[in-house]
Parts: sequence; structure tokens; C-alpha cells
Amino acid sequence: MTIKAAVVGATGYAGAELVRLLACHPNVEITGLSSTSFAGQTIDEIYPSFKKCTLPTLTDMDTAIAGADVVFAALPHGLSEPLAKQCAAAGSLLIDLGADFRLESEEEYEAWYKKSFDEPELHDGAVYALPELFRDRIRDAKIVANPGCYPTAAALGLAPALKAGLVKSEHVIIDAKSGVTGAGRSLTQNTHYPETNETISAYKVGSHRHTPEIEQSLSHMAGAPVKVTFVPHLLPVNRGIEETIYVPLAEGVTMEQVRTAYEAFYKDEPFVRIERDGISAQIRNITRSNFCDISLHLDKRCGMLIVCSCIDNMVKGAAGQAIQNMNLRFGLDETTGLDTLPAGF
Amino acid sequence: MTIKAAVVGATGYAGAELVRLLACHPNVEITGLSSTSFAGQTIDEIYPSFKKCTLPTLTDMDTAIAGADVVFAALPHGLSEPLAKQCAAAGSLLIDLGADFRLESEEEYEAWYKKSFDEPELHDGAVYALPELFRDRIRDAKIVANPGCYPTAAALGLAPALKAGLVKSEHVIIDAKSGVTGAGRSLTQNTHYPETNETISAYKVGSHRHTPEIEQSLSHMAGAPVKVTFVPHLLPVNRGIEETIYVPLAEGVTMEQVRTAYEAFYKDEPFVRIERDGISAQIRNITRSNFCDISLHLDKRCGMLIVCSCIDNMVKGAAGQAIQNMNLRFGLDETTGLDTLPAGF
Amino acid sequence: MTIKAAVVGATGYAGAELVRLLACHPNVEITGLSSTSFAGQTIDEIYPSFKKCTLPTLTDMDTAIAGADVVFAALPHGLSEPLAKQCAAAGSLLIDLGADFRLESEEEYEAWYKKSFDEPELHDGAVYALPELFRDRIRDAKIVANPGCYPTAAALGLAPALKAGLVKSEHVIIDAKSGVTGAGRSLTQNTHYPETNETISAYKVGSHRHTPEIEQSLSHMAGAPVKVTFVPHLLPVNRGIEETIYVPLAEGVTMEQVRTAYEAFYKDEPFVRIERDGISAQIRNITRSNFCDISLHLDKRCGMLIVCSCIDNMVKGAAGQAIQNMNLRFGLDETTGLDTLPAGF
Amino acid sequence: MTIKAAVVGATGYAGAELVRLLACHPNVEITGLSSTSFAGQTIDEIYPSFKKCTLPTLTDMDTAIAGADVVFAALPHGLSEPLAKQCAAAGSLLIDLGADFRLESEEEYEAWYKKSFDEPELHDGAVYALPELFRDRIRDAKIVANPGCYPTAAALGLAPALKAGLVKSEHVIIDAKSGVTGAGRSLTQNTHYPETNETISAYKVGSHRHTPEIEQSLSHMAGAPVKVTFVPHLLPVNRGIEETIYVPLAEGVTMEQVRTAYEAFYKDEPFVRIERDGISAQIRNITRSNFCDISLHLDKRCGMLIVCSCIDNMVKGAAGQAIQNMNLRFGLDETTGLDTLPAGF
Repeated sequence: MTIKAAVVGATGYAGAELVRLLACHPNVEITGLSSTSFAGQTIDEIYPSFKKCTLPTLTDMDTAIAGADVVFAALPHGLSEPLAKQCAAAGSLLIDLGADFRLESEEEYEAWYKKSFDEPELHDGAVYALPELFRDRIRDAKIVANPGCYPTAAALGLAPALKAGLVKSEHVIIDAKSGVTGAGRSLTQNTHYPETNETISAYKVGSHRHTPEIEQSLSHMAGAPVKVTFVPHLLPVNRGIEETIYVPLAEGVTMEQVRTAYEAFYKDEPFVRIERDGISAQIRNITRSNFCDISLHLDKRCGMLIVCSCIDNMVKGAAGQAIQNMNLRFGLDETTGLDTLPAGF
Repeated sequence: MTIKAAVVGATGYAGAELVRLLACHPNVEITGLSSTSFAGQTIDEIYPSFKKCTLPTLTDMDTAIAGADVVFAALPHGLSEPLAKQCAAAGSLLIDLGADFRLESEEEYEAWYKKSFDEPELHDGAVYALPELFRDRIRDAKIVANPGCYPTAAALGLAPALKAGLVKSEHVIIDAKSGVTGAGRSLTQNTHYPETNETISAYKVGSHRHTPEIEQSLSHMAGAPVKVTFVPHLLPVNRGIEETIYVPLAEGVTMEQVRTAYEAFYKDEPFVRIERDGISAQIRNITRSNFCDISLHLDKRCGMLIVCSCIDNMVKGAAGQAIQNMNLRFGLDETTGLDTLPAGF
Repeated sequence: MTIKAAVVGATGYAGAELVRLLACHPNVEITGLSSTSFAGQTIDEIYPSFKKCTLPTLTDMDTAIAGADVVFAALPHGLSEPLAKQCAAAGSLLIDLGADFRLESEEEYEAWYKKSFDEPELHDGAVYALPELFRDRIRDAKIVANPGCYPTAAALGLAPALKAGLVKSEHVIIDAKSGVTGAGRSLTQNTHYPETNETISAYKVGSHRHTPEIEQSLSHMAGAPVKVTFVPHLLPVNRGIEETIYVPLAEGVTMEQVRTAYEAFYKDEPFVRIERDGISAQIRNITRSNFCDISLHLDKRCGMLIVCSCIDNMVKGAAGQAIQNMNLRFGLDETTGLDTLPAGF
Repeated sequence: MTIKAAVVGATGYAGAELVRLLACHPNVEITGLSSTSFAGQTIDEIYPSFKKCTLPTLTDMDTAIAGADVVFAALPHGLSEPLAKQCAAAGSLLIDLGADFRLESEEEYEAWYKKSFDEPELHDGAVYALPELFRDRIRDAKIVANPGCYPTAAALGLAPALKAGLVKSEHVIIDAKSGVTGAGRSLTQNTHYPETNETISAYKVGSHRHTPEIEQSLSHMAGAPVKVTFVPHLLPVNRGIEETIYVPLAEGVTMEQVRTAYEAFYKDEPFVRIERDGISAQIRNITRSNFCDISLHLDKRCGMLIVCSCIDNMVKGAAGQAIQNMNLRFGLDETTGLDTLPAGF
């Protein structure tokens, strides 16, 4: 099978990561790449790392998506709804890496994004596409809402405990650290090398837009509302997210039960790995791969379960998961094109 | 005034940082430096950065401390008690950078360090020396127990809120990140460059020995027992600690009250700075200085106070605070020799 | 075709990188992994990044190589000759990542390695295996002597200019910078994070053992002896080598001629890329790939050609090139298993 | 003595570093700080690291320099000539960190900066102020032209060898690596964290404007024209320059002679240190100090002297040297305010 794929917004980091992975996917032909800033150029003029790889010239969006079976959109928030309409009309599948279709509640969307749903009927066919948790619904999705990076690590890190009722789920604290590619390719003082290197800083404390998305997934898993205190930090590494998650164990629950629940939950998942006892999940073990590594810890004195959950923000947190969703949606093995092993150094 | 100072364990990172700062202190003459591994060498053979600075040759401990007014000990845990006895006999003040004299409760010490107090009477004269919180007691200390790095950032970060009863203090969560110098000069796989760079990892989750020391200070401030879930992470930077601290606000308390309490509490402190609203405390603003920077944040939806507290682990977290304590104890201005400004880049 | 492959010395960085790449090679079955230090363990106990990948348990060398079609050796210098004898007897191909078979001149080998050839007749069948320069000879190699990392970047960086006689080739200066994985997995003070980070330092100035290997390749290309001043530096990055190479242009030669010569020389090479005019080759464009990126510059005032040549020391400088050689030797497309695209971020 | 000092361009990195060092100088009162972008704000709004330090509010230039004994200018090239005129009229000393007054030859200035001297008579009173080489002339300077960062490391690294005629001085190759603060505070794609981290790249190869400045100093030392091939690289560290310098030894010269010449030349210099035999000068030993560390190496096979020369680009390469020049010019000990010791970690 050959899937014709277009990438809209191909020169941002998420877009470029899509190109990098799709170019090596055995069942994909890249038929279009769009860029607002660089239309007319070849992508290796912006990313010399892509030299020697034959890729379509950058064009405007309409040209790029023509004839595509699947359109990956890596756009600023708010631009995917019109594109979704266009894709629906053309019969191509939209896999949206933005936030436009992730929140089920329009009220929450308005509260956090200051915008209402322009096309409510499109939202009905959109599925929040975290395959490990919502695989069955994704198979029939009309629009694939690819999850955000932080929410992916959070949901995978807590799903088994919530699902099995092993924790007090009313309130969860997530202390997250992200590599700088998460802030994108645009220049800011915060991501200027001398001011990012040799430091760490919390940002958007208690106000990051991934908060409602995290709560949505955790609440689904718990079967009841979960509130999240979410604090992201900018970490001086290029890639990777580490989330340290704090949630009290339910009365009488043991770590053996927790570990058993996690191993059972992820037994057949190709991309989720539970660390051995005593080993902390860490970024370098998953970099440039689609894995999510999870470690389980107990603060016995306080009855607190501590979960470390790590993904590569550009892969499982963006482009890799989008391709996993494409594979799933087109009936391919989910690992197709995503089977590289991380080095650890 | 000229204070004769000796450094025991001068070639570890904390010892070398003491040498670096003491060498520029206007009221100090370094009269002895000891090293088990490098006795007989000059310290610039191990640290070429010290070239051109005239310093005593490295010797054994007994030679190094002879005639000193003050002895700084940067030793592995458990070696300071016999040294304390020797100093007491010689009439010199011991400033101990190790953990031997930090815990007031022998029971807690035994629980965490698997060792009892060998010299209980010495402990009676020892003072836990965090000047901003216990200044009065330090003035008469017979032994100065210099606080650990993580506990310093934690105690300064929470003291005003606890003291004023603005938070529910039964349980606090501290997510801490430390630069790699905190792990010392000894070689380990975890601190081997290719396995430390481009990653972050939690370690000693819920079991780090600084936990009881943090609880001791926080409980003093709260006037009631405080339990702490403490998770340190190894951060790919050389220096600095950032702690993100989570504690629920007490009923009806506003952020204005919190900010006012912090500013009042630290009004006359030369080394504690409260960030403007909206700015997160971060490592690069305090590196190589004795400052503790603190920022205050609210997760309104969950009623959670979030405090970011940053220090340089080698300065305010070790050598700098030790010198601040020496200044205090010898009647000098506390900032003497510690007045360099951090660059921020 | 399925090639049975064994890796001897699988837990060092070069060995682990071989495992990482071979595990995803479509025509390879890994049949044995040996480790002196970790025999009996699984490799994911040392490298948790390999979890979920089914790999043979670590064993001793004899067990690991039994039945293999190809044996990759990533051993300390001096241990490959006996292994070569064993492989010859067993009819398996040895691809040696060490230096034992790289130098053609025993005299040079003795001068730099303080050791003579133990098995001179084996050396007759060994080929210095830099495919872009010596492809024809490699096809019949009895032993594949995989080039060193620095020599690979140097030889590829200068071959076209030397071959075409465009430079004064008597003396070349190579200022090389290498990521820290080049120093291996063993712990040293020089590679302890706080002493490697935020610095750069030259080492083995004018005395690095790669010098004669570089001179051997450059002399072959020039058809006359080339002397090299070679200064490597330890660079605070994990991976990658950048070499800035200085050689005077021959009388009357223009940069157009130089550029034309390079583009012609590498026209059909899948792994060598010449940067556009004005762009410097840099590490981030080749990381984790088998590419060698080369940029060409002129110091017009001094008539000096300056070449920047970059490879990933672990891939094109070690494991990747070894697999390229295996592909070549077994009649596969040289890019098989090596076609991942670098991200550039 | 109290010197009234103003900093023009106080919010760029060089300006901020001046503020940082001047604020702790015992004989300086900072009386004015100017900033085009941030006039009206306090400098700790841009650099929170300066909190608690009482400093004048940022103003326009005219206000800032009023009444100053010394004006430090950290301006883009081309803006210092009019300021020099103003300072001359007001009787204040200008210490210029820009390039306007560094080149003695107007022809060279025009060739590299595409601009002629607007005020030739001012240039007559300007002195190229590298104290270790031109101390006597600086004492009477009307305008202090503070050297560039790369030229400082180069000139100090070669002066003794050139002065004593120990090398063939017609042509020198300098391979330089600089920390990212050298590129300034302005945002560029090249200094965006994810594109600067984990790489190294040459830039302005053979065309950097520091070239004629380096040649000017080296030619003075050699007493004959010296041509320089100069290739700077952007290094993923915040601070520091390492230059590896290649120059052939003169016939019959030994390394003992070289070492002796360097030690004699710098015997009384407080800020220049020659490393022991076998140790390479490296950035971490001089960071945040005014030291220049130099190591001497021989490639015996090629008769090549290799010198490694390291400075902190912001201190000895900019603000520190400017203060050293102020000290010299005002009759203070040159080390005043510059006596901090680097840590090495």
C-alpha cells in the first residue's frame, strides 16, 4: 500500500519531524509540503539535514494537499478548522497536530483558547487520538486530533492507576520538564541559547493550555472528574519530556498491585515500557523514538505514588504519534516506520 | 580582623568552592588545606583554575587545622564528629558542611543514616545554621551545622508561608532539580557526560537523606509537624538547584497576603530576593552567588500555592552559606566576601 | 537474504551502536552478543533504551561468534588479531572496529602502538575499508578494517582535492572537535559531566594515534607522502565530529575548480553531501546518520583552502560505516539499514 | 579614589557584564547607564540577576554620561566616533569596546568595515589597549580602544614567540571557538537553543572582521607583517574562547626555549598563566575571570608550534579588560575589582 501524504506547515519543528519520519516510511509517498514563509524553496534550504532526500518543493497549502490521502497539519492553533472542511470535501483524512479538535467540551475550549468552535459538526467526527487509550474509536475517526506532548506523557503515565482505581484521583500534581524544541522554531529571548543553557525555569505556572486536555483524558480514565495542577519547565535539552506525577495511593493499595496493573495494561503495547523496579524513566532512553517510558515509585511515608513518564516531545508527543495514528487508521501495523531503537547516548 | 581558616577536604567540589571564596575574602587568611587523596600536592595541580593564587600546600588533616580560628569540614558523612572533638579541644570553631550535626533528633538520624550520635554532648552545642531563619542561635553556636543544599532552598522557599499560617502545612510536595556538581567530583556512570547530557532523571525518589532535614526546618516554621514528599532530579547543568514546591493555600488566603508575607519576612535579608509577579525564579539568575531567588505562583483552579526557589548548590547551598555563617559568628557583615553579582548569562 | 551477525564487545558505546543499528537492519539477524563485564545479563539491563527489543543474552566471545556469518569487533586495541584467526578458521567475516588492521605499514604500527603484527599473513587479506575511497578492494576483503572516526572525516574531506592535485599536499593541518561518546563508556575525570560541560580542550596534541591512519589515506589520495598536524579537541556534545582542515591551494587553482572536483567525486555517493556555497557543514545536520557533510571555503588573502567535514563519530565514524561495509561485502545496497534522515534539531 | 563611571549600551551582554563587574569595584561609582531599547526601566527588569543591587535607572546616552570620569561604550560598530567627540569635550575618558578605534590603518578599516574615519584627529589619541603588550602607551591614552575578544586571545597567545623570533611568522593559522554570548543578546536562528546545542559550526570563514586586528597586533610583535588565516566557530557553551594556533617553529628552536620565553614574558603579569607541560589550556579554568591561560605544544614530526589560548570573551575579551584598562589609566592596581578566582566547575 502507498499512502499519499501532505504536510501543512512543514518547516516548523513538528512539520519537519513529520517529513523526517514520513520520508523513511515504507508505505508513504510525500506528495505535498506547504510553508507560509518559505513557499518556493526546497526544504533542505531551511533544513540542510534533509539534503539528498528527494522531497516536493514547498508550496502554498492548497497545492500541497491536492490529491493527498492524508493531510498532516502542524499549524498554529485556530487554523485547522477551515482546513478540516477542505479535507472533508476532498475526501482526505486530516491528522491535526494542533489543539483545535482535542477538547470535547466547547466550553473548556472557549475558556482556555478564547475561541468557540466554528464548525461544530466537524467536531463530532473528530477523535482524540491517543492509540493506547482510545484505539477503537480512532479506527473510524473522520478527523484525527493528535494529542499534545504533555498530555500524552501524563495520560499514559496515569491511565492504569486511574482505570483500576488504585489512586485518589480528585487531584493530581504534574511537574513537567520539556526540551526546547517544544517551544518551536520561532525566536524568543527565553530560547536564546545563553539564556536557556545552564538553567531551568517554570513557565505558564498553573495556566498552560494543555491542562484541560490532561484533565479530559485523566477524567475519562478515572470515570470521574480529575483536577490537575500542572507546572511545565523549560529544560536545557533539545528533545524530550519528563513528567513527575504525584498522586496519593488509595487506602490499602500496595506497589505490587500498582506494578501489576501497569504491566497488564500495557502488555501488548509496542510503544510503552515500564522500567524495572529502582530505575527511573529518563529522557535519554526514548529520544528520537516513539516510546513512552514509565517508572513507578512510592513515597511510603506519605502514601504517595510517584510516576515518572518520558516521551520525545517531537515523536510520541507529535509527529511519531501522528504516524502511529495514520498506521492505525489505514490498517497498517502501528509500528511501521517507527521502529528505530533509541541509543541512550 | 584576620580570621585564620582551614579547609578539611579541600579537593572535593564543596572544599574547592570554599577555597575559591575564602581566597578572596578580605578578612580571611587560609592557613591550612587538607586532602586525603592529594596530600603533598598543591591544589592548582588538581584545579588549574587556581593557578597564580598563593595557597598552602595540601596536607593531612591534623597539620591543616593547626592554629586555625575556624575549620570548614567538607567530608563524607560520619567523619565530622571526631573532628568536632578535636576542634573543641583546640578552641577553633567547626563549620561542618556534612550532615553529622544537622538533625536534632538522634532517632531520625539513625533512621536515615544508620548510625547513632557518637558524641551526644557535642550535639547540644551544634546549631542548624540557616541564618535567615535561625540567626540568633547561630551567634552562640559551638558547632555550626551548615545546611544541605536542597533543605536550604526548601526552607527559604516555604518559611514565610508556614510562619504566617497561610498554607495547609501537613503535607508538602517538593520537586527538586539539581546541577551535577551536587553529585560531587567522584566518577559515576550517572555523571558520565554522555549519560547526563540531554536528559533528566529522578533519583532516590522518596528516599533522599535531605528529607528529614527539610521536614525539621519546615516543622519549626509551621510550629507543627510537616511531612514532605521530596523527589530530586539530576539536571544537565553544572550548578544550581530549582525547587518547585506545591502546598495548598489555607482557606480564604489570597496571593496578595502571600506576597506581602514573603516581602515582609525577607525585607532586610541581603541574600533572598522575591521575583516580580509573573517572573519565575530560575537558576541562571543566581549562579555563582549566595542569593536565593523565590517566585510565587497560584494555581487558582486547585487552590494550590506554587513556590519556585533557586540557589547555587555550591554557594548558598554549601560554601557561600558556610562563609555567611562564619561572618555572622565572627561579627562581620554577613555579605563580606559574598557580594559578587550573578551575570544571568 | 539474512545475515547472521555477532557483536563482540557489545556493551561499549560502539558495540551498543552496532546493536542499535543491526537490530533494525532488514537483512540481519543478531545471533550473538559478547561482553566481558556483563556476560549473563541482557543488554537492556545496561542500556534500558533497548527494552522491548528481543536480543540474545550477553555471553563470552566464543559463544557469541559461533555460527555467525559476520563478526563485528569493538574491542580495545590489540585484541583483534587472535579473533581474526578464529573467524578465518570458522569462515566468518571479521569487521574490525579497532585499529589492529588499519595501518599497512608494520613500522608505523609499531611506532604508534608499541606492538608488532602478530599474524602478518592475516594483514595481507585485510582492507582499509573506507567505501567511498576503496570500494573495489573491500568487495574481496578477508578482513574488513573499519576506519577510525577522525580519519574518516579527514579522508573524505580532502580526497577530491588531493586526487585532483588542487592543493599543496605536503602538509595539512586538521583541527578536530569530537563529541564525548568518542571517549567511550569508561569513566574518566575528563568526561565527568561538570568538567566536560561548558568548556573545550585539546588533547593528545600532535600525538593522537589516528595521525598515521590519516596520513596513510591522504598519501594514497595524493599519490605522494602527506604529513599531517592533527589536534583533536573534546567538545561538550554527545555525538559528532567536526574537522576544520587547512591546506594551501595549488598555484592558480580557483574555488570553482575545487567545488566542481568535489561534486564530481561524490556524485554517486549516497552518504557524502557537499554544502551549498556559504553554508558551513555542522554536526547537527548529520547526527545519528551515516552522512558525511563537507563544506568548502577559501581564505583568499592567504590562498588557503579550508574544508569543514562532519560525521557522527558513532555512525559513519564507527558502527554505521561497519554496516555499510557489511552491505557492500554481502552484495546489498550500501544504504540498507542506514537510511534514516537526521533531524537537524 | 572614587571614579564616576557611565556605561553606554548597558543592556547588551558586554554592557551588562560591565555593570556586573563595576558594581563590585571598590573605587567605582556607577553614575549612568544608557539603553536605546529600555530607557526608563531599571536594569533588573531586563536582568533579574541584578536585583538588590542599587543602580541608576536606564536613560538616554546624553543623560547617562553627564558628569562621568569614564565612559564605557558597548555600542554597535560605527557609533563610537561621535561619542568620542562628546567625551573629549566633557573631559571624560572614553573606553570603547567597539571596533571604531582599534585599527591604526584607515585603509584596513575601510576594507573591512566599509567606512572611513570620520574624525581622524581623534584616532591620533586612541591607543589599542592590550595592557600586557602596550601598557606604556595606554597610560597616556586619550581614547582607550579596548581589544576584541578573539584578538586578545590571539595576541597574548603568540606575542612571546613572535617577539623572540622563535617562529616563522609570515603566516599563522588560528582555529577559534567561542561561546554563544560572543554573538550578543539579539535573537538569530544560529543562536536559537535547539540549533546551537549539540553542534559546532564555523562561521565567517576567512572573512571575520577581527582578522585585521589580529594581524595588526601580531605584526607589531613580530616587527614584520604577519598574515593570519582565522576561522571562528560557534561553540555550545555560554562563555569562553579557545584558540588553537598553528605556527611553524623557526629553524633549530626547541620547546625549552619557547617555554622559557613565555614564562619570562609573562612573569609579572597578574592575568596571564602558562599551563604546566602536558596540560591544555581550557575554558573552564578561566570562566568569569580576567585570566588568559596559555598552553604550549609541539608537533615534533612537522616542526609545528601549537598554542592553546583561552579567555572569557565577556571578561578578558570585553568588560574585564576594559576595567583593567581603567585601573591602569587611573593609577589603580590593575587587578582591582578583577580578583575573583575561577572555579573550574
